[in-house]
Amino acid sequence: MHRSTDPYENTPSGNSPAGGAPAGGAATGEAVRAALAVVNVQHSPIGAFASFTLGHPGAHGGLGLGLGGPAGQDVLVGLERAPGSGDFDALPFFAGAERGGDAGGVSDAARFQVGDAPVREEGVLNAFPAHAVSRTFTVTTDTWTAGDLTFTVRSPVGPVPDPADPAAGPALRDALLPAVLVELTVDNTAGAGPRRAFFGYRGSDPYLGMRHLAGDGLTGVAQGTRTAIVTDSPDARSAIGFDVPYVLRPGEEDNWGFGLGDTALLVLDIPAGQRRSHRFAVCFHTAEYLTSPRRCRFLYNRWYPGVEAVAAAALERFDALTAAWERAEADLGAAGLPPERAFQLAHAVRSYYGSTQALEDEDGEVVWVVNEGEFRMINTLDLTVDQAYFEARQHPWTLRNVLEHHLRDYSYRDRYGLSFTHDMGVANVFAPRGRSAYERRGLTDCFSYMTAEELANWVLAAGVYAHTTGDTGWLAGHRATWLDCLESLLARDPDGTGTHARDSDLVGAGAEITTYDSLDTSLGQARSSTYLTVKNWAAYRWLERTLRQVGEEEAADRAARHAGLAVRAVLGAVTADGTLPALLEDPAGARIVPVVEGLALAHLTGTDTAAEHDLVAALAGHLRAVLVPGRCLFDDGGWKLSSTSANSWLCKIYLGQFTARRLLGLPDDEAAARADRAHVGWLAHPTESRWAWSDQILAGVPMGSRYYPRGVTSAVWLLERDAA
Amino acid sequence: MHRSTDPYENTPSGNSPAGGAPAGGAATGEAVRAALAVVNVQHSPIGAFASFTLGHPGAHGGLGLGLGGPAGQDVLVGLERAPGSGDFDALPFFAGAERGGDAGGVSDAARFQVGDAPVREEGVLNAFPAHAVSRTFTVTTDTWTAGDLTFTVRSPVGPVPDPADPAAGPALRDALLPAVLVELTVDNTAGAGPRRAFFGYRGSDPYLGMRHLAGDGLTGVAQGTRTAIVTDSPDARSAIGFDVPYVLRPGEEDNWGFGLGDTALLVLDIPAGQRRSHRFAVCFHTAEYLTSPRRCRFLYNRWYPGVEAVAAAALERFDALTAAWERAEADLGAAGLPPERAFQLAHAVRSYYGSTQALEDEDGEVVWVVNEGEFRMINTLDLTVDQAYFEARQHPWTLRNVLEHHLRDYSYRDRYGLSFTHDMGVANVFAPRGRSAYERRGLTDCFSYMTAEELANWVLAAGVYAHTTGDTGWLAGHRATWLDCLESLLARDPDGTGTHARDSDLVGAGAEITTYDSLDTSLGQARSSTYLTVKNWAAYRWLERTLRQVGEEEAADRAARHAGLAVRAVLGAVTADGTLPALLEDPAGARIVPVVEGLALAHLTGTDTAAEHDLVAALAGHLRAVLVPGRCLFDDGGWKLSSTSANSWLCKIYLGQFTARRLLGLPDDEAAARADRAHVGWLAHPTESRWAWSDQILAGVPMGSRYYPRGVTSAVWLLERDAA
Repeated sequence: MHRSTDPYENTPSGNSPAGGAPAGGAATGEAVRAALAVVNVQHSPIGAFASFTLGHPGAHGGLGLGLGGPAGQDVLVGLERAPGSGDFDALPFFAGAERGGDAGGVSDAARFQVGDAPVREEGVLNAFPAHAVSRTFTVTTDTWTAGDLTFTVRSPVGPVPDPADPAAGPALRDALLPAVLVELTVDNTAGAGPRRAFFGYRGSDPYLGMRHLAGDGLTGVAQGTRTAIVTDSPDARSAIGFDVPYVLRPGEEDNWGFGLGDTALLVLDIPAGQRRSHRFAVCFHTAEYLTSPRRCRFLYNRWYPGVEAVAAAALERFDALTAAWERAEADLGAAGLPPERAFQLAHAVRSYYGSTQALEDEDGEVVWVVNEGEFRMINTLDLTVDQAYFEARQHPWTLRNVLEHHLRDYSYRDRYGLSFTHDMGVANVFAPRGRSAYERRGLTDCFSYMTAEELANWVLAAGVYAHTTGDTGWLAGHRATWLDCLESLLARDPDGTGTHARDSDLVGAGAEITTYDSLDTSLGQARSSTYLTVKNWAAYRWLERTLRQVGEEEAADRAARHAGLAVRAVLGAVTADGTLPALLEDPAGARIVPVVEGLALAHLTGTDTAAEHDLVAALAGHLRAVLVPGRCLFDDGGWKLSSTSANSWLCKIYLGQFTARRLLGLPDDEAAARADRAHVGWLAHPTESRWAWSDQILAGVPMGSRYYPRGVTSAVWLLERDAA
Repeated sequence: MHRSTDPYENTPSGNSPAGGAPAGGAATGEAVRAALAVVNVQHSPIGAFASFTLGHPGAHGGLGLGLGGPAGQDVLVGLERAPGSGDFDALPFFAGAERGGDAGGVSDAARFQVGDAPVREEGVLNAFPAHAVSRTFTVTTDTWTAGDLTFTVRSPVGPVPDPADPAAGPALRDALLPAVLVELTVDNTAGAGPRRAFFGYRGSDPYLGMRHLAGDGLTGVAQGTRTAIVTDSPDARSAIGFDVPYVLRPGEEDNWGFGLGDTALLVLDIPAGQRRSHRFAVCFHTAEYLTSPRRCRFLYNRWYPGVEAVAAAALERFDALTAAWERAEADLGAAGLPPERAFQLAHAVRSYYGSTQALEDEDGEVVWVVNEGEFRMINTLDLTVDQAYFEARQHPWTLRNVLEHHLRDYSYRDRYGLSFTHDMGVANVFAPRGRSAYERRGLTDCFSYMTAEELANWVLAAGVYAHTTGDTGWLAGHRATWLDCLESLLARDPDGTGTHARDSDLVGAGAEITTYDSLDTSLGQARSSTYLTVKNWAAYRWLERTLRQVGEEEAADRAARHAGLAVRAVLGAVTADGTLPALLEDPAGARIVPVVEGLALAHLTGTDTAAEHDLVAALAGHLRAVLVPGRCLFDDGGWKLSSTSANSWLCKIYLGQFTARRLLGLPDDEAAARADRAHVGWLAHPTESRWAWSDQILAGVPMGSRYYPRGVTSAVWLLERDAA
């Protein structure tokens, strides 16, 4: 809806930094190293809808709060070259750095100097050359080393206690702290004199100016009430001005208290012969009731009334938080994956948290929101189901919160029964009850209704929650809902074809679509969809067990019967070459990877997929047959979701990879590794990698669903390792 | 500090609408008519730091809250051409309209449709051709008529009760209502069928999406919590989508509840044979404590908890507010001025209110802020003195509030004594006590200290307040302050030269400047400045009377003596051609208009300037001699403040014109009228007129101090009429 402020938006694509995607045949780890030269990562607190985004050369990162893309700010991290020289080298995260290392030009100061006063030229800030910068990145740390400077960003991962738990207080306060931590280390042991270093940013909020922040042993710079960089180093001083060279020129120290200009720095002098580390907190805050018409604000306001309180807590808890995040990272175990998978999982986790928003309304009711990346739709249900396993593993109450919210406020009944809206609104605006921001009548593609898709998604997300947590009380409390869901699923297949056969009356003259909303009918169409048939089979299987558990034997039998019908429908559609068509009704049509997706959800909801021999055999045969060049593989070895489209979704590829290896017995071989390298290469696009983790990739180029939370489907890879 | 989102910022200046400044020799009224074809006007509530800006062709207006320039939004006002045709003509206030009337192109919907789905082309929205649109504009109304459509915006003027007055409640609630009112009239008396009309906008807030607003007989569209357009017409329906043609195409009504896209409309069907008027409120609101580190929010939150409450009050009070604003406009009496002056005064009043911000802090203390237009510095004191007469006439408590605030928090003592900071901060960030955002050590031009200038300004603004209101209690309460100010003035001229002779020690190796901060030394330098000498004379004269009034006879005598020294210094500097040099110490230097400015302030603070025969004669002789082509007149007849610069400030020209005609006896002749036409022409620049009222004009082109509050110096013209 809202254009990012990111400056590439108006530049031709030719104006991109040097370098390109690594070749598919590179050695293990090389693809990741190439990616780390360009990828923006969202260093994001949990539930703050905020990111300290960094990594892509140029002014493409910064402190973004509530945005659908990078803030497009200069992030200024630099060190004086030689003691007293006044020449600075900086990490390449500022305007002009991507063009070879200087940011010359006319300063913003010129706006004040129309007329006779000489316009001050902006000076030159040098960027460290690319070859001089190295970077390592994990789920919780991102470190750049250049010359004598080391810069580490630490971001949270770990459990988030349920706010309903009376004992949750202190741990919840830590978990939802809207800050990430930074260490800046300068090695001046060989220096003949003191060297000056700085860390700061150039703000871009349309409403608020930059300011100095001081007090309680802290020194900081802030943009109004919303963002800040703060240190507890007693040596730091804050400086504000139009540009770095002007602020840091000799003799300007007296004027660091200036208030104009959007460039704000924390400046440190490192004595000769010393190696010093300084700690910073990169903080986000708004006390505003920012949603409408239902008024909610960030839950962290319970403990942090302003950005100063955030900074104080972050620096006071620096050691404890760092240790906790390291433990949580070890618990997650991503380091045990091959480097390409570990990289993609870490990248995806950070973009997921950058879209999360822990809110409470005026009555104190907690509302968990995952915003839909660049689109910022609220709790899009076809994302919820894909993120369900990660949430259920890390903080299951957030998943339950979304499920309950959807059931109470964003469900509806059409002619066939209960279903769920695509989303709950967009960009801090809640949609009216029972409707989404997205769905429209009369269409057959993007923006049509997803009634059947979302019904399956809600059931399966509920199943992932229940299976992962073992929350039987919750299951028992929703007995009527499971019956409702089953009736609605059955009513959409009144003739027992085993597949989704009746589109909602809400579409009018249109047709229902699936989550693959900008694909051709191979994945776009809901009716007769093989993908949805397998997903519905998974839903029936889980409903069968759940209904039995709550004493609804007759309904459970009907669910089981219909699961069988679904399997029969799939098996009956296998063609002579052992593949399945995308639409059961169209044997000659496209071949797609996601027919196997439902199998993953069956596994994640506790169904013993191995027991479904025939279905597994059919899906395995299909996948082996289509994962060949010209069908469902790109030239670089990356997965192509549909044989008839160049459009691919990484989050779905991740689920498919898991299904192939863990549930269908496909080998984790060189072809699999080559695919991983290709996928890393897509995320390392020379310009589009500024969007951090992106989902929708058109022929290797991230083109849509950027800055996106859905990549945490990759968390299922951890189950492969656990099983190994 | 912050770039406007206005799209011209990145376009070459050649890409401007047709038309140009009217010739200096045009007939009375023609210059205004030409200006009305292009000027953006800030239709602004009082104290809401908000404007519904409209008038410049293209996407250069919109609903701006807290911005330093136009919001750069489409404002969508249109009517179906023939009943049922589906072809719409709109006022030219949307992207593309300035290029001849259509907004074709790829819609924002394309972002969702990457891949196989066909990208929907945006349709065409026609703009009424320029010749078909007529416009009339006064202080409180702005009306466009095109074909069968009439669109009127009504904005407030009038008294604002002192919040300290316990009886102020209801009137203050009305005065600070953060809304302007709109009437849309469609004449379909000749129509053979119903015709559809719309009013809406395309939002541009980076954080918030568009939404539908409904309830209590109201229908509206809003951008999150911050802006809204609402009507009480029972026939209106709201519609949201990507663009107007798509939303309004036949059969789309079912989808008007859509939530994606930034285009939001209120749609009305006008029956055949009817002429109907519909009422709207254009509303602004934020409940946020938006300033830091001192936390303040808008005072209107006392009565209006949200934008819905603003809308309800605006529509309920529509008739009462309209009547009150009409009465206040009549009381102001601008209509009695020649059209060029009436236009400039009305234009300036609207831009002034667009920069005003009535706040209260967490303890309930009321804080009045005038933001410095595009620069957004807070209560810049050299603006306060120029706006003082207008404020003292309309709502004197706001002036007193700023004066007290400056004295308590933004005054300081240098080596010579008391003075006042240039400003109180910038862009909702309050500077630390005793310092400004602006002033820096070591400079001799822009951003240097204005110690002497601001000392004179605070004294004279206090004088304007006291003289206009007769608030003797306030004078008596500040006896020590008047003594402090006098001592500080005297200490800066220890040798009794009659002029400012000692720069503050705060400048270091630099030099003090004046409010003319981007001019050459003719007006930029404070020491020896003839302009400042006359201003100081005015300050001494007022202090003399005031000190006598509070019983400080000896100090009053010293003030009188120094006033005499100032006059002697001026008279001693008159050169052979009867003119005064800009700097007393440089007889061969520049000649400037503003040497007369202090005389206006003497008059406004109650000094009988006519009694100062010699000074008046010298200034009159000077002005007659310099107001000639090649010295202080531009070729178009407009005033040139300095003979050595092409840089002119309209607010200061206005003061100079008043001084010339009312206090120096210069005739209000054809040359004066030609100057007025030239000044209107400057504000009617083909592209820069989008900045509404601008102050700093470089050779006829608004180049700085745009979107600016200071033009209300023109209110002194009302004193000419009163005296006539």
